[in-house]
Amino acid sequence: MKEMILELIEQGKYAEVRNKITEMNEVDIAQLLEETDKHKLLVIFRILPKDVAAGVFSYISYELQRYIVESITDSEIKNILDELFLDDTIDFLEEMPSNIVKRVLKNADETTRKLINQFLNYPENSAGSIMTIEYVDLKKEMTVKQALQHIKETGIDKETIDTCYILDDSRKLEGVISIRKLILSDESVVIKDIMDADVIYVNTHDKQEEIAALFKKYDFLSMPVVDNERRLVGIVTIDDIVDVIEQENTEDFQKMAAIQPSEKEYLKTNALVLAKHRITWLLVLMLSATFTGNIIKKFDEVLQSIVILASFIPMLMNTGGNAGSQSSALIIRGLSLGEIRARDFLKVLWKEIQVSCIVGVVLAAVNFVRIYYFEKAGFLVSATVCLTLFFTIMLAKVIGGLLPIMAKKLKLDPAIMAGPLITTVVDAVTLTIYFTIATWLLDI
Amino acid sequence: MKEMILELIEQGKYAEVRNKITEMNEVDIAQLLEETDKHKLLVIFRILPKDVAAGVFSYISYELQRYIVESITDSEIKNILDELFLDDTIDFLEEMPSNIVKRVLKNADETTRKLINQFLNYPENSAGSIMTIEYVDLKKEMTVKQALQHIKETGIDKETIDTCYILDDSRKLEGVISIRKLILSDESVVIKDIMDADVIYVNTHDKQEEIAALFKKYDFLSMPVVDNERRLVGIVTIDDIVDVIEQENTEDFQKMAAIQPSEKEYLKTNALVLAKHRITWLLVLMLSATFTGNIIKKFDEVLQSIVILASFIPMLMNTGGNAGSQSSALIIRGLSLGEIRARDFLKVLWKEIQVSCIVGVVLAAVNFVRIYYFEKAGFLVSATVCLTLFFTIMLAKVIGGLLPIMAKKLKLDPAIMAGPLITTVVDAVTLTIYFTIATWLLDI
Repeated sequence: MKEMILELIEQGKYAEVRNKITEMNEVDIAQLLEETDKHKLLVIFRILPKDVAAGVFSYISYELQRYIVESITDSEIKNILDELFLDDTIDFLEEMPSNIVKRVLKNADETTRKLINQFLNYPENSAGSIMTIEYVDLKKEMTVKQALQHIKETGIDKETIDTCYILDDSRKLEGVISIRKLILSDESVVIKDIMDADVIYVNTHDKQEEIAALFKKYDFLSMPVVDNERRLVGIVTIDDIVDVIEQENTEDFQKMAAIQPSEKEYLKTNALVLAKHRITWLLVLMLSATFTGNIIKKFDEVLQSIVILASFIPMLMNTGGNAGSQSSALIIRGLSLGEIRARDFLKVLWKEIQVSCIVGVVLAAVNFVRIYYFEKAGFLVSATVCLTLFFTIMLAKVIGGLLPIMAKKLKLDPAIMAGPLITTVVDAVTLTIYFTIATWLLDI
Repeated sequence: MKEMILELIEQGKYAEVRNKITEMNEVDIAQLLEETDKHKLLVIFRILPKDVAAGVFSYISYELQRYIVESITDSEIKNILDELFLDDTIDFLEEMPSNIVKRVLKNADETTRKLINQFLNYPENSAGSIMTIEYVDLKKEMTVKQALQHIKETGIDKETIDTCYILDDSRKLEGVISIRKLILSDESVVIKDIMDADVIYVNTHDKQEEIAALFKKYDFLSMPVVDNERRLVGIVTIDDIVDVIEQENTEDFQKMAAIQPSEKEYLKTNALVLAKHRITWLLVLMLSATFTGNIIKKFDEVLQSIVILASFIPMLMNTGGNAGSQSSALIIRGLSLGEIRARDFLKVLWKEIQVSCIVGVVLAAVNFVRIYYFEKAGFLVSATVCLTLFFTIMLAKVIGGLLPIMAKKLKLDPAIMAGPLITTVVDAVTLTIYFTIATWLLDI
């Protein structure tokens, strides 16, 4: 397809290109543009019908959006702005340098300019920052017939008509109705009698992850956003919520790997920024690990007298770290999905104690066989290692399970209490147990 | 609300309960049932209108579904089955023991029974296992008016009417049309002329994560599922895809923490099963770590002669592990979102080399100041530790960045190449570098 279109451009057959390309999905056209070299890209973009061009524009990367806006005329910018949904305009402007934002605002009409400025002021990751204003509003006195007629007249410019919003004269939200209910109802029925007045809505300043949770709970396709006077100011749609869900998950993955969260794609971020996001946590954890080193220093006669003990340190530290990371990962995920709540503290404690007993016994037993029978390390040394392993797993799992819940209780982000931090904490505990048992059992 | 309803039940005012409760959202009724004790729960459930009861049934936990089905009569089961969407029936049956499945099948009519058996046979996590059959089908010869009339007559039992599917006489998929286009079009237009014939569809056996990727790419609300002859057999809707996305993310979180993935909620899984999911990887990693122990054993004269070297081992191993986990987490996430592809191997390599140089220099410098000036460990020891730290970070980041991509190339799951495994690999490398540099610099 791509080759064919490029060839048609080569031959100057623009009408044919236009025919071919408008049969394609906007997402696919966007992908085609991403893979086309820059001057041909502009040719293709200018061939597109106005509404398709705006749709495609909302799907291309910020780099390409910037290139296009810098290359086209003011009146072309105006055309795109007219067709673009407001949430896509805001997404785009938030990523542009100020000279481009200024140029775009200059080309917007008065009302749009005011709206854009208002929307750009909503806090990042709030309902206001992801909502759009292209919704259908109805009056409760309308009949179904009038409502459908109203939708027919105004629906073309709306992002969705699946749910319509019933507003009073001061634009306060009074109810919602689905297009499905409208179509399935008798034409003469009045909206008031069939609308759902028990509307679940969010406020412009509500956080996007809370809104995503409501979408997941109620299987919504869209949700109304109101201001402090319950006036409807916009709607959030499921396609943006899917992005929010993935963004929140990415953030958790990053935090759990001790990286400062960033929304920017890896390959599009330069090395200095990537390094900056990683260095703080590495420094903190590195300096904390010196604490563990001090424990070794403190017990160095133990190591001096039985050198073989040193060779089990990596295995003990690793297994402790892994056992703790497993628990913390499960609890962090459970908390973020709402399956575990802060008040389940004791349940989690009890569960981790049971699990760690089973896991601890099995791992210690396997390890004993290996050390005593295969490495022939002597009974007391083997016993020291295996007892330490058991207690380490026990403590690691309890610490790993409870720290995320405690973070939640303290209104901190549980995702911080993941593998890297747990490992550092568990390391110190492991070595203390190890040397204490060694001193006691091996009589050093 | 809950208290009020329970009080009304206490007083035997069932009509009022019914009025109050049917104003509530089905999800909220389900939550009310979860929190109500068991015999009152049945009273409330039986008060619900048939269609609401089915909706609520699809939102309660499997434990409660099982309790209800075991407590109600055959004819009540039949009522629920009639109203339940097929995908919810399948979700429910997949979790029930065979005696309940048999009883439900006995109460289903012939057609439904056949369908259930067919759907239960689709592979787990395939399109077939998450699709439903309650879609609207149209013919391409219909006018918009006829189509809307058809929807009005049949739409009540459909899961969604937002997208309608155009089938030929052998039920082959010929096109799709959105309800929006139908409403905005003139009544006399023929469907054929306005339908979208370039349909993006999936096959019954396609994997759910691939379907989720298509939903994310194209912002779909639903997608058609066809068999090998391109006959429409069902549709997948966005609410189920949101669940798939969260399920796939949970799986990645679990794999990255070295846990066998499981779909069951933590608090509802017993300790033995939880232990089973964790033990395999812990064992594998524990035994691999003995390899690291052997390196220490091999170099024990080095440790003997300069004992202070041992105290830096935890810090070096930890920092190496963390540096590697950071890179692998970013790459695994990038791969799973499709932002990084296997062919970006060299780009990732180059980026990680740059990042690790920056991070390595900073961390080594901080560490040198601490060891040389504060711990007064001597220049050569400090230099040994800091050089090791630099090379460890370098290698950890390159290994952490490249192993997930290599897994992808080998068609393995990149999520396996996360923190725990990376740490084990990096530990061995770290110690080898450490002792090599020590032997060379400290002339042991």
